[in-house]
Order: sequence, then C-alpha cells, then structure tokens
Amino acid sequence: MRKIIVQKFGGTSVADTEKIKNVAKIVIKEKQNGNDVVVVVSAMGHTTDYLVKMAKDLCANPSGREMDMLLSTGEGVSIALLAMAIQAQGYDAVSFNAMQIGIMTENVHSKARIVDIKTEKLKENLKEGKIIVVAGFQGVTEDGEITTLGRGGSDTSAVALAAALNAERCDIYTDVEGVYTTDPRVVPNASRLDEISYEEMLELAHAGANVLHPRSVETAKQFNVPMRVRSSFKLDNLGTLILGVEKMEIYKPVTGVAADLSQARIVVCDVPDKPGVAAKIFSRLAKENISVDMIIQSYARKVSNTNDIAFTIDSVDLNKTVEALEALKSEIGATGDIQVDENIAKVSIVGAGMIDRPGVASAMFETLAEQNINIRMISTSEIKISCLVDKCDAQQAVKALHKVFELESNEIAEVKGDLPNV
Amino acid sequence: MRKIIVQKFGGTSVADTEKIKNVAKIVIKEKQNGNDVVVVVSAMGHTTDYLVKMAKDLCANPSGREMDMLLSTGEGVSIALLAMAIQAQGYDAVSFNAMQIGIMTENVHSKARIVDIKTEKLKENLKEGKIIVVAGFQGVTEDGEITTLGRGGSDTSAVALAAALNAERCDIYTDVEGVYTTDPRVVPNASRLDEISYEEMLELAHAGANVLHPRSVETAKQFNVPMRVRSSFKLDNLGTLILGVEKMEIYKPVTGVAADLSQARIVVCDVPDKPGVAAKIFSRLAKENISVDMIIQSYARKVSNTNDIAFTIDSVDLNKTVEALEALKSEIGATGDIQVDENIAKVSIVGAGMIDRPGVASAMFETLAEQNINIRMISTSEIKISCLVDKCDAQQAVKALHKVFELESNEIAEVKGDLPNV
Repeated sequence: MRKIIVQKFGGTSVADTEKIKNVAKIVIKEKQNGNDVVVVVSAMGHTTDYLVKMAKDLCANPSGREMDMLLSTGEGVSIALLAMAIQAQGYDAVSFNAMQIGIMTENVHSKARIVDIKTEKLKENLKEGKIIVVAGFQGVTEDGEITTLGRGGSDTSAVALAAALNAERCDIYTDVEGVYTTDPRVVPNASRLDEISYEEMLELAHAGANVLHPRSVETAKQFNVPMRVRSSFKLDNLGTLILGVEKMEIYKPVTGVAADLSQARIVVCDVPDKPGVAAKIFSRLAKENISVDMIIQSYARKVSNTNDIAFTIDSVDLNKTVEALEALKSEIGATGDIQVDENIAKVSIVGAGMIDRPGVASAMFETLAEQNINIRMISTSEIKISCLVDKCDAQQAVKALHKVFELESNEIAEVKGDLPNV
Repeated sequence: MRKIIVQKFGGTSVADTEKIKNVAKIVIKEKQNGNDVVVVVSAMGHTTDYLVKMAKDLCANPSGREMDMLLSTGEGVSIALLAMAIQAQGYDAVSFNAMQIGIMTENVHSKARIVDIKTEKLKENLKEGKIIVVAGFQGVTEDGEITTLGRGGSDTSAVALAAALNAERCDIYTDVEGVYTTDPRVVPNASRLDEISYEEMLELAHAGANVLHPRSVETAKQFNVPMRVRSSFKLDNLGTLILGVEKMEIYKPVTGVAADLSQARIVVCDVPDKPGVAAKIFSRLAKENISVDMIIQSYARKVSNTNDIAFTIDSVDLNKTVEALEALKSEIGATGDIQVDENIAKVSIVGAGMIDRPGVASAMFETLAEQNINIRMISTSEIKISCLVDKCDAQQAVKALHKVFELESNEIAEVKGDLPNV
C-alpha cells in the first residue's frame, strides 16, 4: 500500500504566485517519490491581516461567527491557486475546503477544536491518483456553521488529517529551517535539532518558542504522528523530526533553552492560610479565561497565619487579572497588596533526558549564580526547569545555559523571517 | 404575514468598507419598513479581476472546478463584512454561502444553472428576525462541488431566492438609476423607464443593454417575480420596475432603442440549395458553443441552384467561427467565399406595444431611409425589430429612432459608471 504524506505550507510559503509555484514543485516531488500526498495550506501572506483590518473598519467588535466566515475565505484562495499550479505542471490535483471534506469541529468560533475528520472523499480522490489540497485553519460544525481553529490552526489541521488518514508523516514547511536549541538571534551558534520528542517540543513551545503551536504538537503526540518541521526554501535541509521519545535515537539531558519575555508576575500578599483560598483565586481566573503559569505559595507566617500567593500570567491578561483579584480580595480575606511585576522573564531548560539524570537542576541554578543572576521563582516539570529572572538578565542566562549544556553548533545559524524559536 | 424583500448589491456597491456601510443602511431601512430582508451580494469591486489575474499567472488554462473554488471566495468576504456592518448598527444579521443554504446547481463549472434552493435555513433565520446576507454568483452540486453561475450570476441568485421564498419583490441595486429608453451617452435626453415588461427587458438585454443579465430576467419572468433596478447611491429615485406585461399600466409602442456594436457578420457564399445544409452549419457552430444571432438565407439562384447564408455572431467568436466554417466547406459543398464583416452594428427597437400596432416596422425603416442609412439585414420578433447597419451609422440611427418613437425626456440623464444600458 502506498504511503500517505501530509504536507503543510504556511502563509509565507504561499505569499505570492511565484512562491505557490515553488510549493507545487515540492508537492510534486513527494508524489514522484511514490507517495500519496495531501497538502494543507494557510491563507496567502498578509491576507488575514487585510481581512481583519476591513472587519475592524466596519465593526468595533465583530461577531465570532462572521469573523470566521470572513477569515475562512483566505484558505479558499490559496487551495484553488495551489491546485492550479500543480495542474499546470501536469499533475492531477483537487482542492477542498473544510466543509466539503467534513473537518468537524465543536461549535465555538475563532478557536474551535477538531472533533472528527471524514476521510471518505479524501480516500476516494487519493485512490484516483489525485494530489489533494486542503484548506487549513477552518472547520465546520454539525449545523454547517463555519469555524476557525485559532492561532497555529493550519498546523493542527495538517496533523489531524495525518492522524485521520493514518499518514506516514506530517511535514510542516515553514520559513525557518527547523527547531533550534535556542533563539539564534540570542545565541548565533545555536544548533538545529535533528530530532526532538513531542514532550520536549511542547515544553519549548509553552516556554516561548513559536515554530509550532502547542495544539498541533499535542495532537501529533496523541495520535503518534511523526512531524517534520523544515524550510520551504532550503530543501537540502531536512529540518527537525518531532516524534515519540521512545523512537528517538539519542538524547542529551537538555535539548533546548528558551526565554519567555511576555509574562508578568503577580503576588497576592497576606492571604489567610486556610483551605480553599487558592482554589477560589485560580477558579476565578480560569472563569475569566486567564492562563496561569508558574505558581508559588509561600510558607505560612506563624504570627499572622497568612501567606503570599505568587504566580505568572501572560502580560496581555494583566489588567483583567488585577481587576478580578481586587474584586476577590475581601471575599478571600486577603489583607495585603496585590503586587505586579512586568520586569521579569522566564528562562527554561527542556530535555527528556533530564528524567534519568540528577543534577540538571542544580547545574542550572549554579550557572545562573555564577552569572550573578537572581532567581525569583522556580518551577519544574518532568522534562523542564523554569526560573523566573529579571528581564534584563534573560539573554545572559540563555547564553550561559546554552553553553553549559553543550548545545552549541560549529555553524552560525542563518536567521530568516520571524523569530525562529527561543 | 410579513413580506419578504430580496435585495441585491453588485460589486461596485460593496467596493470598499465605506460603501458597505452605505449598503447596510439601505438594508436596515427596508427592515424598518416592516419587511423581512434577504440580501444577495457580489464580490467586492475588482476582487474577481485580481483573483483571475493570479490564476492566469499560475496556469494558462485553469480548470473550471478550481476557478469556481477560487472565485467563490470573493462573495465569502463581502457577505461576512456586510453582516458585520449591519450588526454594528444594532441589527441582527447572519451570512450564508451557497453551500450552507443549499443553492443547488447542475454539475457544470463557471456557468451552472440553479436547479433548486433549499429554504429551510432561510425561513428559520427570518423567523428569528434576522437579516440574511447570502453569497451571490455561487452554487453547489449534489456532490458538494462548488460552482459559479457565470456573468450576471448574482442577479440570477437574487431572483431565484426571491422565487424560492415567494418574495414580494427583488430589488437590484446597482450604479445606474434604472433602465433607460436608450444609452444616455448617445442620446443625452434618454428617459428612465418607470416600468418595463420582462419580455421587453429581455429583448433590450439581448440587443446590447447591460443593466441585467438576461438569465436573471428570464428567471423573474418564469416565476413572475417583480424586479426593481435602482441606484445604491441615489435613493430618492425608485428606478425601473420590471414585471409581467399584464401588470403594466400603460405602454408605448416602443419602449427602448438599443445598438449592439459587438457583432460580426458572416456570409457563407454559394451554398447548395438543398435540405440539411443550414442544419449542418448551425449545429456545428452550436457544438463549438458559438451563439448565432440574426440569420438570413437568400433566395436560391435559379442558374447555380445555390444560395448565400448570412448570420451574425459575437465578434469574440469570429476566429473560432471562421475556422469551423472553413473545415465544413467541402462537406456541405459550398463553392464560394466565407465573407466576414466586422464593420456592422445591430440597431433594435423593442416594445410590447408593437404587437397590436401595425406600422411600427415601416416607421423604423422609413426613419433609417430618411437618415440615408442603408439596412444590411433585418430580423424581427414579436416585440423587437432589429436592423443591421454600418457601424458608423449606429449612433445616428439610435438618435433618430429615439426621437421618432417619442422616447425623449425633458431632463438630461446623468451618466455614471459603466455604460448604463443599451
């Protein structure tokens, strides 16, 4: 049986007709390798920005439903053009939007999750030897409402299609050459990783990397779909393969170093030390759709029987968070201030290898101490250790950790396009 | 029961966000009048040209299927934006594409005909008090393939929706103020008609007018849907009502004068005068999808037992026609030349009133004779008389006929945008 490869090309890869021709060549190459090919594409270049601008001209707060209707047209354009470009090179191609295939999502606008993908039409067309071009980022509900999947949605579409079709691999073509040990703009000799596990990729992504949206990696992990991140423009470079940790050949204790500069720290001071207080705070924030990252609760003070609860959030949620907490203060009996600090950064080291190797955490803390960098908060997971430091120390911390954990390459990475990853 | 009004706005009426706001106001006005409103919109301004240009960049001869997929995105943008603009003014609106509603067409690309429109979703949303915004120009087949309806398709979508919903009226908003007795660029005191019958409108359209595509008028006639053509920008002017001749209050013998400058005349000389020859010629042209307009067969010459077959076609089909005829010459035994004349124009007078009034044809011929204009061919229908004249005489012919049949207004028509009509 022929293998199915799902390929995904983002907006910069299909930004104009010349680039679409380039994509058609890559797609045909894979077909010539003897594989069945399903291609997922995003809207061309700045289409989405342009559409959003028009919407804002008309309506301060456009409805999610109409916004999804509007934005989903972007992929309609790119799938048709790519199918034409493939046909122009003598190969049979057919484009489908989410409604035509049946990429079923929950009934939520602007950030729906895929619940099912019908494969009948896809299998039928693959059987006829056709290259299938699918609109990413969009879905449809049981009621025929058009939805979109939110940030990184096309990556998720591609992985979900790969899972539904039991594909050999999902190749994410983008404008970076793969996943790096850290941001090459900070550390010029950062190495491109040949392999990384789903878990490490997830931790790196949550820690501020932006090559792939975490949801696509989570989906790949869930269905065990190998993903490859590679450049649309440098085809001699195979990029980075993302796969189950059990399939990885070798791994170092630390795979990557990331800095996240977009967090803010909140401290709710003098909170009564009794059960249910933390639950009240965090369930209230969850209700407001505010994601909380690191959480530290201090030891209770013997005299006052109070403690301090500190946590970090994304800076964009800062005002909303402070409002919510001020409203909650009397209810939970907090007597102190609500302190806010935006002048912080979260520096993380990630690696599946740290599970079996003690001493990784202490090596991190020692390295930061040697650099005279003060650690404000610490949090750990199985494969990640994060330290909150002053924002001005973040770059120095990344450089030192990258060196200590031997992540350097002999080459200087070429930085192209947006921030590759951190 | 509330009356349903279907409104249609073309590309120039929704060309930018300011114009879309204007359209939203017109729509809401109709809703405030106590009617249920279904709005059909085309793609914004030059969107279609832009999409076609990209397609041509990629593929000399793009497939009809992918072209329809591409072009149908244009209306997806305008429906969402119009729905947002209506919502911004505090009214409930919802947009649907053809697939969501079920505007079912035959399985033909780029010029499909509507075969059925599902009304369930429309009726449900109207019942909830919503203004419904529908994508014009597009349809969907039983198999879920996206189709487009070809030139003038959005007008046809609007009329078909009005028919399916048993609407009170279908208002076509455009950049002209209505249907005129002739082209105001040729005759500045042409009159705007308050009413015109379907049949007259059809004859005028076929004779070169371009306010409405004939198919939309045919559909309106078939289902007896009153149509109104009016300006999106001059709302004090009610435009022209198109309706069944039996409902018209008064009519003159002649309603309008039109000139069609885009025709070419072909003469196939010395064709054997025997049965089946004309059939062979015109079935061959039909197979090539060439529309033939006026046809004249001369009396057979006694000596040679041959005659000449003359007819007119659209100039764009000229090369294709000549090729087809050259290939056919020996088969039909034609011994003469194939003569081509592009230096011609078809001048027509149209009027439901001419049925009961003899002398209209002779008045036309006399008028042209007085102007010293030579008539090259004549064809007549129940409500139209067309004369083929030299192209250079067309304007003079239109002016003289417009005067003779008393079609002048006391006002000078304001000419806006493209050729208004005729």
